Order: sequence, then C-alpha cells, then structure tokens
Amino acid sequence: MALPLDVLEKSVNQKLSLLLKDGRSMEGKLSGYDEYMNMVLVDVEENHGETKRRLGTIILRGNNVVSISLL
Amino acid sequence: MALPLDVLEKSVNQKLSLLLKDGRSMEGKLSGYDEYMNMVLVDVEENHGETKRRLGTIILRGNNVVSISLL
Amino acid sequence: MALPLDVLEKSVNQKLSLLLKDGRSMEGKLSGYDEYMNMVLVDVEENHGETKRRLGTIILRGNNVVSISLL
Amino acid sequence: MALPLDVLEKSVNQKLSLLLKDGRSMEGKLSGYDEYMNMVLVDVEENHGETKRRLGTIILRGNNVVSISLL
Amino acid sequence: MALPLDVLEKSVNQKLSLLLKDGRSMEGKLSGYDEYMNMVLVDVEENHGETKRRLGTIILRGNNVVSISLL
Amino acid sequence: MALPLDVLEKSVNQKLSLLLKDGRSMEGKLSGYDEYMNMVLVDVEENHGETKRRLGTIILRGNNVVSISLL
Amino acid sequence: MALPLDVLEKSVNQKLSLLLKDGRSMEGKLSGYDEYMNMVLVDVEENHGETKRRLGTIILRGNNVVSISLL
Repeated sequence: MALPLDVLEKSVNQKLSLLLKDGRSMEGKLSGYDEYMNMVLVDVEENHGETKRRLGTIILRGNNVVSISLL
Repeated sequence: MALPLDVLEKSVNQKLSLLLKDGRSMEGKLSGYDEYMNMVLVDVEENHGETKRRLGTIILRGNNVVSISLL
Repeated sequence: MALPLDVLEKSVNQKLSLLLKDGRSMEGKLSGYDEYMNMVLVDVEENHGETKRRLGTIILRGNNVVSISLL
Repeated sequence: MALPLDVLEKSVNQKLSLLLKDGRSMEGKLSGYDEYMNMVLVDVEENHGETKRRLGTIILRGNNVVSISLL
Repeated sequence: MALPLDVLEKSVNQKLSLLLKDGRSMEGKLSGYDEYMNMVLVDVEENHGETKRRLGTIILRGNNVVSISLL
Repeated sequence: MALPLDVLEKSVNQKLSLLLKDGRSMEGKLSGYDEYMNMVLVDVEENHGETKRRLGTIILRGNNVVSISLL
Repeated sequence: MALPLDVLEKSVNQKLSLLLKDGRSMEGKLSGYDEYMNMVLVDVEENHGETKRRLGTIILRGNNVVSISLL
C-alpha cells in the first residue's frame, strides 16, 4: 500500500501541481515537507484564474492544500 | 460492524468516487491511505460542474473529503 | 442518560437521515462508525435541493455532519 | 459557579432551544450528551427561517452548536 | 499581568457583552465558564442587527466567541 | 531571535493594534495574554469600516486574531 | 531534504512575502517564529487589493498564513 507521506517522500525533487482551498493552483518542485504536509517548494508558479505569478521558493502550509498531483 | 478505516482498507486497488468540501468530485483508484484519511489515488479524474480534468496520481488531504463512495 | 455514541451503536443496521454542513441531506442504513462519528452507510440516497442521487455504500466523514436523525 | 457541563447535566430530560452555526434553530428534550457537547435530543422540531420540520430523535454534533437555551 | 481566564473568573456574577463570530452580540450575567471559555450566562438578551430577543439562561460555546466586554 | 510570545510579553502595558479574521480592527492596551494568544485588552476602540466603538476592557479570543501590530 | 521549519530558521533577518487566507499579502523582515509558524515580522507593509499600509512590527498568527515566499 502506498502511504501518503511515503509518496510525498518519493516526490522530493520532483515537480508537483498543487490545488489550494482558496481555488488557486501552484506548480513547483518539492524540496521538502514535514508530517503536517507543510512543504518547501522551489521554482513555484501560481495560477489564479487567468493570472500567472512566479513565486520562487515558498513554504506552503499543509492545511491549505486540497490535493497534490505528481507530474 | 464495518469500521470506516476497515472499509477503506478493503477498498485499496478499488475504484472510488469522492466528494470534496468545495463541491468538486473525483473518481480514482485507491492506492493507499493513512489514519487521517489522507489518500493516494491513481488514474484520477476530477469533475467540477461541467468541467472534467485528468489529474493522474494525487495525494488527497482527508480533511477536504465529505464522503467516499465505493463503486 | 443516552450517550451520543451509545445511541449510534444501537442504530447499527438501522436507517438514518443525516444533515451535512453544506446543506445536503442523506438517507441510508448505518453499517458502522468510529469514535469521530465517521460512518459507513449503505443504500445511501443523497438529496441536494430537488436533486436525488443514489450513492450506494459510502464512508462519511464525521466532521461534515450536523445531525443524525433516527428513522 | 455554574460549570457549562454541570448545567447541561441538570438539563437532561428538560426542553432546550438550540441555535446552530448555520442559522437554524431547534427545540427538543435533552436525552444525553458527552464531553464534546454532542447531544441526544428527542421530540426535535427544527426551524429554518419560516420552515418547520419534525426531526424526532437526533444526535447533534456539538461543534455545530452556538448556544443552548434552557426553556 | 491579567490572565484571560483570571479576568473571566473575576467577572462571575457580572454583566458582560459578547460578540460572536456570526456577527450577533449578546448581553448577560456570567454564571460560570470552563477552560474552553464555554460560558453559562443568565438574563441574556441577543442583538442581531435591529432584532432583540430574550434568551434567558444559555450555555454559550466558547469557540463562537470573538470578544467579551466587561460592563 | 524574537519569539512571538516573548514579543507579546514585552508588549504588556503597551498599546497594540489588532486585526481580526472578520475584518474588524481594534486598538487597546495589552493587560495580559495566555499561551493561545487570548488577550486581555483595556481602553479598547473597535473600527469596523467607518464605525468606531468604545469597548473598554475586553477578553479577546486568540483564534480570531490575524495580526498584532506594536504601536 | 529542506524541512519547512529549517527553511524558516534560515530566513530569520531575511525579507519575506506572505500570502494570507483572507487574500491580503504582506512583506516584511522575519524577526522570529515558533513551532506553529506564528511569526514576528518587522518593517511590514500590507497589500490589500490596491491599498498599501505600513504596519511596522507585527506578530502574525501562523494559522492565517497560506504561503511564505523567500525574496
């Protein structure tokens, strides 16, 4: 069985697409995470409706995340 | 009695339909889960109103889930 | 005194009507539950406004539930 | 000093009026409760705006409750 | 330093004005409280916009409270 | 490094400006706090849009606070 | 692997851009933080739509934060 945190572990240094509770989505490379699914992401690009924005390196709070897609 | 996590355990490798708090629904095959009902799903297809979107493999945070239907 | 979880225990295999936080209501037979009031329900029918939908067997997250009516 | 759970204890078998977070109110007789203020209520009548509805016996999740009035 | 629960302790049998998360405000005499700031209030009057309503004795869940004013 | 609770400790008897989750802001002198950032504030003035209101001494629940500005 | 709190540790005395749950964003220099990602920020400037506002030194509650960008 694939445990959620094990899948996240295997995704370190991989590109992810994230969907947030407020409707925004982000793409970036996973640099690290903790047990609460707080994540460090690099080369992040945010999409909010039609607007794109480069965010660089971010710390993302896990409790704002709906889903994490492996690309 | 059927305990919720036991039913989830028996659903590994089965196709599920999920309803999320924000109104979206998803279908996908359960690959794994943890005690918080965080799930790993593969071959995921998201439905938001009329819009369909292929999401592939995702980690879904359990606290966004309303209900999980066994298909 | 009737403890909430004791009443739920006695309702196993009984038909229940549930009201959810998002305004939807569901009817189904209780197959099991856990301490967080996560429930396994079978023969579930969902009502959202005028729309009815058969959901079959579901796992329902307890934190989305407002009230559980014994039928 | 009147502790909230002590007041609830004394209200068993008494009629209560409850106000919920979603704006609905309910009246019913308290049959039991637990430490999270989950309650078992009997002879429940729900009021949502102008709409009245008989709910019979319900389990009410405490985290949806704003206030409990002793009648 | 005035600890919040100590100030509440000193307010027992005093009249308080409370502001709730849903915009309603209430006035009443504090009869008791617990560590979660759940409160027992007597002679409660609720104000919702222009509407006033007598609630008598209530148990108020602390997690709905924004602020408590000492009168 | 300046720990959040240490900064709050040093702010006792100082004037603060607070921003709440519901968009209101308040100014007052910090009289005390606890580990959950519940605060006792004196000489409080609330601003909601154009409306100003004197609240006197209040207990403010920490989980409604977004940010605390030192004046 | 870059743990979220380690990245925050390395960001002390650095300028950060923060996105909050209510849509506001802030820029400021990180002066300190705790395990809940509560932060002390100095030289803070808030942006809410077109409105800019100087906030000086603030304590920001971590549970209002969506993401923290390193500048």
